[in-house]
Amino acid sequence: MKMSIFSVQDHYPDQPRSLGQLYGQVLEQARRAEQLGYDTFWVAEHHFHEYGAVPNPAVFLAALSQQTTRLRLGTAISILTFHNPLTVAENYALVDQLSQGRLSLGVGSGYLKHEFEGYDVDPATKRERFDQNLMLVERLLAGERVSHEGKFNRIHAVRLNVQPVQQPVPVYVAILRREAAYHVGRQGRRMLFVPYAAVDNFEEIGLMMQDYRRGLAEAGIEDATGMAAVALHTHVAATDDEARERAARAFDLYVDTRLYARKQVYDDIIASGLSLFGSARTVADKLARLADMGLDHVMSLHNFGLMPQDRVLESMQRLMAEALPLSGVRPASTVPA
Amino acid sequence: MKMSIFSVQDHYPDQPRSLGQLYGQVLEQARRAEQLGYDTFWVAEHHFHEYGAVPNPAVFLAALSQQTTRLRLGTAISILTFHNPLTVAENYALVDQLSQGRLSLGVGSGYLKHEFEGYDVDPATKRERFDQNLMLVERLLAGERVSHEGKFNRIHAVRLNVQPVQQPVPVYVAILRREAAYHVGRQGRRMLFVPYAAVDNFEEIGLMMQDYRRGLAEAGIEDATGMAAVALHTHVAATDDEARERAARAFDLYVDTRLYARKQVYDDIIASGLSLFGSARTVADKLARLADMGLDHVMSLHNFGLMPQDRVLESMQRLMAEALPLSGVRPASTVPA
Repeated sequence: MKMSIFSVQDHYPDQPRSLGQLYGQVLEQARRAEQLGYDTFWVAEHHFHEYGAVPNPAVFLAALSQQTTRLRLGTAISILTFHNPLTVAENYALVDQLSQGRLSLGVGSGYLKHEFEGYDVDPATKRERFDQNLMLVERLLAGERVSHEGKFNRIHAVRLNVQPVQQPVPVYVAILRREAAYHVGRQGRRMLFVPYAAVDNFEEIGLMMQDYRRGLAEAGIEDATGMAAVALHTHVAATDDEARERAARAFDLYVDTRLYARKQVYDDIIASGLSLFGSARTVADKLARLADMGLDHVMSLHNFGLMPQDRVLESMQRLMAEALPLSGVRPASTVPA
Repeated sequence: MKMSIFSVQDHYPDQPRSLGQLYGQVLEQARRAEQLGYDTFWVAEHHFHEYGAVPNPAVFLAALSQQTTRLRLGTAISILTFHNPLTVAENYALVDQLSQGRLSLGVGSGYLKHEFEGYDVDPATKRERFDQNLMLVERLLAGERVSHEGKFNRIHAVRLNVQPVQQPVPVYVAILRREAAYHVGRQGRRMLFVPYAAVDNFEEIGLMMQDYRRGLAEAGIEDATGMAAVALHTHVAATDDEARERAARAFDLYVDTRLYARKQVYDDIIASGLSLFGSARTVADKLARLADMGLDHVMSLHNFGLMPQDRVLESMQRLMAEALPLSGVRPASTVPA
């Protein structure tokens, strides 16, 4: 099982923690993640709202590339619908170079109404834009000289001046609804999803994985190792009660500031099972069940709702040093990539 | 006098130095620049050609922000005509945060034909695009909620989620021709220019500064301290002959790969005077003359044409430790910003 960090960087401008302080904390979390053996540090892209405080993950990951040497650097996700695919490809090729080949490119089409309005993009076009732009970004990152006359872009024999180190850069498609898993599988693509936003309860994660693997199999891919990653809100403490004491208020603050998502507060999410909240034992059992579902990559989101930095770091540490060993699941280093 | 570094990052894919190695050298140059007391590390933006190997300075500067603590981080320039002003403002606000307020934003409209073609932008629209986009970027970076219905952008009540630390971020407008200096002055704006590309001989730099100051005066600005910066190709060696031995071939290679510019090779540029090539004494005299022209900020370009890293660093060192003291010009630390 690969364990990763997922960082949305929810920001609260009226609270004492400044943006600079938040970034400083996240940079420290990334350094610590590398020391603790986490696989990837995934950063979300959000615009025009404190929902998330990184408008361009490429810029943030370039900073992280200089604070780390082994940790992979991921986008979860780069919103392809809002940007010129030339610029997206240029940015992430540069990140792959600056990190010496550590980029994992999660991509998606976006879902927040205010972001589509801000970028003046009609949400009705998002599927088509996403498909076109993903195709163009992948061709550009593969080093092709691209010509394209499409509905949204005209490109005349352009080749990037900066090529990524990795050939190919691993691309993960983010999905929001269970139905999409089968289709992403059929395309033979890697997948990532946030169960909190995508399904109603823990068992559905397994159903989604079944759909995905059925799609993969139809695409001729029987071995799904390293293909899917799932993001779960996480706080590991000494006991389940201590986890609740430490994380419930922070999580509820975070949930309260989320836009357009189903809002399950702490007690709801304990009931639905869509989290890694609890003691190392509780979380270990969850990890074992995820492994049984065929998942081998968990993105854990520890930093939410102004959770104090020392507790974020403690939870990150407990997940790797206590919960993962208790789970009986093999850590990533013994699993082939 | 503020001394800075200007980094175009010309790349030669057929030569042994890889892109990763080039970036590694530039990161080391930035660390060394900070140690040596340079003011700003300016990075150029170039697309689709090895002319320059940084398609997005914001990404590169984010990496530099983690390798330095005092050095200012500049764009020379960010090409406003090719990009959505929302994205430009988002990127550079993030760089200003990650660097804790060290961004200097040089902006320009671009001049390379293949870049306009690549981004499918009609060069005939570049003036209008530039003016519109600069206005929007500045309003966004000032924290305004912006609404705008223009020829190139429609923005509906958007405010950045990430604001820069500096209020305001210093903005420098790059000019390519002497005539523009007066107009930039009249707008009360900071200016930067590369004499190699803009004028025919050293004395014209002074005339350009006179034009600029006349414009500034008409805008009510009598004190031009810190307002203009000039970029010059630089190699400081033990003697003028050693400078030629070390730099001529590298400079001629670099010039040979430049697109659409007047091509003065090493001996031409010694004749026109538009460089800082030579012994510390020779370069000191040039610095003194630039100071007499009213210039108080020099951007020195030491890394060109596959110049070996140890010689780039040696030249950077000689400029600060030998040429500047010999010039009699006050170094930046004693000049008010």
